[in-house]
Amino acid sequence: MSSFSLSADNPLFALYAVHATLLVFKMFLVVVLTARQRFAKKVFANPEDAKGRSAKVKLDDPDVERVRRAHLNDLENIPAFLFVSFLYVATNPNLALATTLFRAFTAARILHTFVYAVKPLPQPARGLAFFVGLGTTIYMAVQVLIHFW
Amino acid sequence: MSSFSLSADNPLFALYAVHATLLVFKMFLVVVLTARQRFAKKVFANPEDAKGRSAKVKLDDPDVERVRRAHLNDLENIPAFLFVSFLYVATNPNLALATTLFRAFTAARILHTFVYAVKPLPQPARGLAFFVGLGTTIYMAVQVLIHFW
Amino acid sequence: MSSFSLSADNPLFALYAVHATLLVFKMFLVVVLTARQRFAKKVFANPEDAKGRSAKVKLDDPDVERVRRAHLNDLENIPAFLFVSFLYVATNPNLALATTLFRAFTAARILHTFVYAVKPLPQPARGLAFFVGLGTTIYMAVQVLIHFW
Repeated sequence: MSSFSLSADNPLFALYAVHATLLVFKMFLVVVLTARQRFAKKVFANPEDAKGRSAKVKLDDPDVERVRRAHLNDLENIPAFLFVSFLYVATNPNLALATTLFRAFTAARILHTFVYAVKPLPQPARGLAFFVGLGTTIYMAVQVLIHFW
Repeated sequence: MSSFSLSADNPLFALYAVHATLLVFKMFLVVVLTARQRFAKKVFANPEDAKGRSAKVKLDDPDVERVRRAHLNDLENIPAFLFVSFLYVATNPNLALATTLFRAFTAARILHTFVYAVKPLPQPARGLAFFVGLGTTIYMAVQVLIHFW
Repeated sequence: MSSFSLSADNPLFALYAVHATLLVFKMFLVVVLTARQRFAKKVFANPEDAKGRSAKVKLDDPDVERVRRAHLNDLENIPAFLFVSFLYVATNPNLALATTLFRAFTAARILHTFVYAVKPLPQPARGLAFFVGLGTTIYMAVQVLIHFW
């Protein structure tokens, strides 16, 4: 078995690199969404942030906390995917299947952020987005275990 | 020095791949534990989750928050280990020693989740599990610094 | 294009390995800072931790929560950097530029922890440290997208 090459010549690694970067950008977008809520509602977590803005320190504003939960959910799911999918591409999977899985995960996480923190929608919108992301990661993780055990 | 090979032919990389995947599965288990507590106590974080379940929105239920702290502790320790241990295997360590360290970390984190979020035990049970995981990671991190500095 | 080598012979990978490890150590430092606040103020999150210390269970102590927010901010930024900068070194960048970027990010995150959790300073101290870290990561992420797309 040949070693996995970490270069743009390897379409599987290029696929990983592009989607990993897009997912990091998506996570940073939540930073912008949090800031937007904090400035709109004039609610900050630290006295030094509130100072001079006629804002207040408050740790339980529902709109801010909603965005922070969306961010925490990203932290629970996106790094896990980035580790597992790196190992998955090292199993030398079919490129078309891998492309579909990376796109599905990325789309699901963008949708998750949208229905959680941009425009709250009734369930099961968020649940579906969450489970598509989780399911994709679990499928890849099982393939990694089968290949490397 | 030869380059580190990202294939199943390299027993150190296979060791990494298997344990990284098991640790991701362990983190996902906490998602199940959180859901179990939320449904058992009918306590949800979002109005759209509580709707139609005769459940309430509550952000400070002690049993739910305990599981969420276990999850956050995973996020503080498991990704750090996955980065450091990847670099550690790139230092070409002794396979038997590396195997022991990976098993110790994985067992410690499974135990940590158990005593934190499944069946709370008196200290120092959780403290010991936490420090075995932290100590393993710090040992590997020191070896990485010695090798690559 | 030659493959990226995961060995100490590759100065870009050595640069990555050293800074990644230093950043993990920095994150672990926040664990010490949290413990210091908890023991100083005798405020714990779990009954089993408070037991026998004449301490109390409290989830909203402002000094403890400040350190925990510093930790969460690390989790939102440092793993993202470690994924993106690994991909960035795989684009075979100029070594001097890469060294500057790694040092800037690492220094910014150390400063961020200091002004957030050790000695709170007025804004924009923390904001500047945060944006230097974010900006460095975004620059690298853009280079990765250009290279691998």
